Amino acid sequence: MSNDRIETGIKGLDDMLQGGFLPQTANLVEGPPGTGKSTFGMQYIYNGIKLHNEPGLIVTFEEFPQQYYRDAESFGWDFRQLEREGKLRVIMTSPEVSRADLESVGGTIETLAREMGARRILVDSISHFGQLAGDPVGLRTVVYGFINSLKREGLTSILTRESPVLLGGDDAEDSTIAFVVDGYILLRYVEIESAIRKALLVLKLRGSDHAKDIRQYEITPRGIEIMSRFEGREGIMSGSPRRMADVFVEAFGKPSR
Amino acid sequence: MSNDRIETGIKGLDDMLQGGFLPQTANLVEGPPGTGKSTFGMQYIYNGIKLHNEPGLIVTFEEFPQQYYRDAESFGWDFRQLEREGKLRVIMTSPEVSRADLESVGGTIETLAREMGARRILVDSISHFGQLAGDPVGLRTVVYGFINSLKREGLTSILTRESPVLLGGDDAEDSTIAFVVDGYILLRYVEIESAIRKALLVLKLRGSDHAKDIRQYEITPRGIEIMSRFEGREGIMSGSPRRMADVFVEAFGKPSR
Amino acid sequence: MSNDRIETGIKGLDDMLQGGFLPQTANLVEGPPGTGKSTFGMQYIYNGIKLHNEPGLIVTFEEFPQQYYRDAESFGWDFRQLEREGKLRVIMTSPEVSRADLESVGGTIETLAREMGARRILVDSISHFGQLAGDPVGLRTVVYGFINSLKREGLTSILTRESPVLLGGDDAEDSTIAFVVDGYILLRYVEIESAIRKALLVLKLRGSDHAKDIRQYEITPRGIEIMSRFEGREGIMSGSPRRMADVFVEAFGKPSR
Amino acid sequence: MSNDRIETGIKGLDDMLQGGFLPQTANLVEGPPGTGKSTFGMQYIYNGIKLHNEPGLIVTFEEFPQQYYRDAESFGWDFRQLEREGKLRVIMTSPEVSRADLESVGGTIETLAREMGARRILVDSISHFGQLAGDPVGLRTVVYGFINSLKREGLTSILTRESPVLLGGDDAEDSTIAFVVDGYILLRYVEIESAIRKALLVLKLRGSDHAKDIRQYEITPRGIEIMSRFEGREGIMSGSPRRMADVFVEAFGKPSR
Amino acid sequence: MSNDRIETGIKGLDDMLQGGFLPQTANLVEGPPGTGKSTFGMQYIYNGIKLHNEPGLIVTFEEFPQQYYRDAESFGWDFRQLEREGKLRVIMTSPEVSRADLESVGGTIETLAREMGARRILVDSISHFGQLAGDPVGLRTVVYGFINSLKREGLTSILTRESPVLLGGDDAEDSTIAFVVDGYILLRYVEIESAIRKALLVLKLRGSDHAKDIRQYEITPRGIEIMSRFEGREGIMSGSPRRMADVFVEAFGKPSR
Amino acid sequence: MSNDRIETGIKGLDDMLQGGFLPQTANLVEGPPGTGKSTFGMQYIYNGIKLHNEPGLIVTFEEFPQQYYRDAESFGWDFRQLEREGKLRVIMTSPEVSRADLESVGGTIETLAREMGARRILVDSISHFGQLAGDPVGLRTVVYGFINSLKREGLTSILTRESPVLLGGDDAEDSTIAFVVDGYILLRYVEIESAIRKALLVLKLRGSDHAKDIRQYEITPRGIEIMSRFEGREGIMSGSPRRMADVFVEAFGKPSR
Repeated sequence: MSNDRIETGIKGLDDMLQGGFLPQTANLVEGPPGTGKSTFGMQYIYNGIKLHNEPGLIVTFEEFPQQYYRDAESFGWDFRQLEREGKLRVIMTSPEVSRADLESVGGTIETLAREMGARRILVDSISHFGQLAGDPVGLRTVVYGFINSLKREGLTSILTRESPVLLGGDDAEDSTIAFVVDGYILLRYVEIESAIRKALLVLKLRGSDHAKDIRQYEITPRGIEIMSRFEGREGIMSGSPRRMADVFVEAFGKPSR
Repeated sequence: MSNDRIETGIKGLDDMLQGGFLPQTANLVEGPPGTGKSTFGMQYIYNGIKLHNEPGLIVTFEEFPQQYYRDAESFGWDFRQLEREGKLRVIMTSPEVSRADLESVGGTIETLAREMGARRILVDSISHFGQLAGDPVGLRTVVYGFINSLKREGLTSILTRESPVLLGGDDAEDSTIAFVVDGYILLRYVEIESAIRKALLVLKLRGSDHAKDIRQYEITPRGIEIMSRFEGREGIMSGSPRRMADVFVEAFGKPSR
Repeated sequence: MSNDRIETGIKGLDDMLQGGFLPQTANLVEGPPGTGKSTFGMQYIYNGIKLHNEPGLIVTFEEFPQQYYRDAESFGWDFRQLEREGKLRVIMTSPEVSRADLESVGGTIETLAREMGARRILVDSISHFGQLAGDPVGLRTVVYGFINSLKREGLTSILTRESPVLLGGDDAEDSTIAFVVDGYILLRYVEIESAIRKALLVLKLRGSDHAKDIRQYEITPRGIEIMSRFEGREGIMSGSPRRMADVFVEAFGKPSR
Repeated sequence: MSNDRIETGIKGLDDMLQGGFLPQTANLVEGPPGTGKSTFGMQYIYNGIKLHNEPGLIVTFEEFPQQYYRDAESFGWDFRQLEREGKLRVIMTSPEVSRADLESVGGTIETLAREMGARRILVDSISHFGQLAGDPVGLRTVVYGFINSLKREGLTSILTRESPVLLGGDDAEDSTIAFVVDGYILLRYVEIESAIRKALLVLKLRGSDHAKDIRQYEITPRGIEIMSRFEGREGIMSGSPRRMADVFVEAFGKPSR
Repeated sequence: MSNDRIETGIKGLDDMLQGGFLPQTANLVEGPPGTGKSTFGMQYIYNGIKLHNEPGLIVTFEEFPQQYYRDAESFGWDFRQLEREGKLRVIMTSPEVSRADLESVGGTIETLAREMGARRILVDSISHFGQLAGDPVGLRTVVYGFINSLKREGLTSILTRESPVLLGGDDAEDSTIAFVVDGYILLRYVEIESAIRKALLVLKLRGSDHAKDIRQYEITPRGIEIMSRFEGREGIMSGSPRRMADVFVEAFGKPSR
Repeated sequence: MSNDRIETGIKGLDDMLQGGFLPQTANLVEGPPGTGKSTFGMQYIYNGIKLHNEPGLIVTFEEFPQQYYRDAESFGWDFRQLEREGKLRVIMTSPEVSRADLESVGGTIETLAREMGARRILVDSISHFGQLAGDPVGLRTVVYGFINSLKREGLTSILTRESPVLLGGDDAEDSTIAFVVDGYILLRYVEIESAIRKALLVLKLRGSDHAKDIRQYEITPRGIEIMSRFEGREGIMSGSPRRMADVFVEAFGKPSR
């Protein structure tokens, strides 16, 4: 794998990303509730510290740091200890923060990142930005400025975004954010054989090739693990795929006549 | 089953939840009218008292306590007696309650919960919160604060939510609530062979694995009972599933050529 | 059949309801134009008087009483005579009635119901409530209060509601009403073999089991008659069902290999 | 055929209506542009005069009477002559008419109808009512009052309504009108074998049974003619029907095994 | 072909129209970008001049006349020369024109038409009318008046309209215009065998029969040419048709059993 | 290939365009995030300089020039060097630019284009125009004026536009732009065999014929490369195509009867 990539350390994902994220890029991870967006981000931060000795920052606009400590613990990741070692900072800022404040949040993060030499950052979630502003144009400007301030500090970021639709679903609403980020990863629910599976798709990775297939993944006691692609289904991204014609053909065999 | 789980005592559900809810979590149960959300919640409270000697609170914003007594009675659960024994409290607060009041509702619940040593709480339904505020961001803050006040009191909660669409349906409208809860259980109607069945899906259980399959359930004279998964259907969560190709294959047999 | 049930006397329906409605409950009957909601309600009132000697009230917010007399007559039900005998009252109140008036309507109904010893009531239609208020939360409170005032008077009610969509259709708009009623019956159009059939589904019957199948019904010269369930179709509730795979299997037979 | 029915004289339709419309009823005819709503109405008026010697009125809110004369002429109906004979009146009122005016329009129509002894009326189109009022509740009241003033005058009316969707389509928007009329006939486009056919469905006929099948019709040089039902298609009312499974079964034959 | 028809001269279309448009009618041609609405209109004007010696007017609210000269040239039509001969006028009026101005535009057109003895007019596009008024009722009145002023001048008009949806699509938005015109021709994109074809459908031709089939057409170096109907597809007007069952039947043959 | 065409130099595309864009035309390239709209535009500019010695301009309303240098570098295109040679200019203007400014932007671009003798221009993206104005009519006028000022300068332009929907999707919202441009190219995601492919379709090329088929393309280390058309699928533009019936027929063979 390439040395100049920021490896996520998420099993199977770095291969899909041709080695990892590109340095100093902003990467959007989007999904409905329960798809593991925060886990994805925490794992990225944790692996940065443990596998690459890259200090990391977690910025949240809602959850208390305790929630992250607890969630991390359930995967065996001791975030309190990492904070004591100065490798990790979990920062919660008020969700009442105004647009002007958002810009100063950037400032606070820059200061902190510089102090601890942070290389990675998780912003969980960027949806709170959208909820603070009724004006999509102004918001895009603020988000774009925020992303650039992260890049200037040399940070490679994961930004999570909440997807309002449970099954399938294209987020027309907030989609302008997807245009300003460098990477864009979709997490989705897919109903297959009367059960709900989770699917991951790398839709965009600016400046690099990437896997195009839709992969199944699971949230295991060790975090997220990417598995094989879905087979024999059409319409996976709709959340409710159809069995493909191949299944018939395979079952009946190709006739010899 | 794990000892540190809050068992629901609902037949088949605790297995799906790997033993039950996690302590001090907020769990959303969502469904259209007639899917048994209140029954689900009452059964959770009743089983807590009867099977685990854990006092419980029921908070309602609309129905009079008498309705709960009557509904419970139809399942053989004597709620009046439990109230006399100090194991249960059914509290109705005015639906006209303002946002400020919602915060003080939290205060009232805290006091009551402490007095009676409550461990479980049913909030029926959280939809009334949404109807009281036109502002989704402010609402999320209030709901998040409300949920956290419940957790601080050591309560493990079920919050019901009304789903406006009868068959299938993704609740884009109110979906931010689903991001702040720890557990998320969907109740849905499914049309199969010219009849309406009920389906249950655990979509999210923060900090724990859980069953991913879509299960049929029934409201019996003894309360909710989870049954087997749906077989041979595609698109169950759409409410109007298709028969799967397998059915053909099975019928005609795999050709031997 | 159980004695403590309020039998509708509608052929085939009481069996679906395990004997009838539960006493002192509010039951919503919803459908698009032409599905016979008013006929359903009138038949319920007529059968109460004729078969069980239970006086009945009809409250309408639009149609003149004459329309009910005429419509009833076409089924052979002499409503004028029943009014003369003091067994029936058809009341029309102004559709311009304000929310405050709605509450006083409750008062008027209470008085009348007490005077004539009414046991059954038809409110045709509850949609007019919704049209009088722009505010869904306030409306729900008023409707809930209205329903409870009916129950307090010992009345078992049918509330009709107009469904705006012709084929299939989930009424997201007005759906909060469906949560506060005890029973919920859906009337729908279904296109089958190039014709429009009518379908009935009992979706909810609080405190009782009920049939879950989707039944065909017809409006005959004797009123509504429930018939057999639909066979061999998927997606009936969508209004535009598909033929099921079974049809093929049945036609070709299960292969013996 | 029953004597007390108002025969439309439209070939094939009176059979579907069990003889015709009921006297003193309001009947809605709804369809997208080009389905022949006005032709339907003119034919009803023309046949009333020619076959039953029943004078008729045509009220329009947009088209000049000349347009009706010209359109009628293309079917061989001499409207000018009928006006000269006092059997027909084509009235155009200003589309700028206010709600108050609408009520007075009722008055004007009453006067005219009485003078000429009119028995039938065509109101083309009722959509103009909806466009004049932003308030659906108030509109319904006005329309209801308007319909009743027609009935009081002994008129049997056809009200046309414009359907905004070309193929298929449920008019949720304006649907409250469909609840206050006595008859409801849908005209729809259906795509079959790469061509657009026209379909007619009687959805409602208060106080009478009626045909439930979806019929093909054509606009011929003699006016509208109802033809056979559609065969072997599912989802006709969607405008884009599917071939039915029967076609396969029929083609391959029922296996003898 | 009938002598009193206004032949479009578009290959294949006049047959579909039973000879052409009717004189002094307004005909709407609607389609998404790239379907050749302007080409359709220019060809109609050009053929009128060249084949029938009928002078023509082109009114545009956006494009400069130069654009029409250039576009026409690419089909070999020399519009500048025709203007010099007094057979053609291309008029551009400001898109900032107010509603009051629209009425005076009518006046200008009348004057010009009279001066040059114009028989045909292309208004490209009527969508600009809609964009100038927020009020659909007032707009309809203005458009209706505009159309009538064209008819009064003896003009037979083509009005183009922009369809906002690329594939399939019913224009509910602006549909009231379709009710006031005499002819209504739909241009649509259809995806067939991984390519985009163009489809034409005559939906309405007041006072005349017309072809009902959906025809493929192409924009050739000689202008628009209508070709054969689509075969073996269902749902063409959806833009994404399905292969029909016939294909199977044909392939496997009708079984002889 | 024709000499008077502006060749894009994008492999496979010029053939689809019958040689390239037409001179002095505005061409819209539209797609969701990650489909390579900017890459498409940069490649067009780069090839103009390298293959045809035509200086080029890039105008951006959001991204800093550095981002373009970096992105170009990943394809081996040295934009800094081209700028030093006076062949390229990358201009960023403020997204806060007002409508009045937009007009003056036109002025700035004209001046620059004249100075450097630019022949090609990329405007990335035109979506920012839409976000600056709430009024679609005024916007269309401004965009139309902007496009014309580019044409007046002899520039052949690519305008990119962001498509808000990920899979499939018709942009009804902003569609008026598509009517005023000369060329319209759609970039789309398509799910095939559990992976996401990219599809390109030339929908419009005013004044020229063009390929109508939907082609697969990839973003390679050398830029965009157009590949073969999609085979054996229906509904590609929906983003979630179905396998075609042909697949069955092919598999089973045409019966020999």
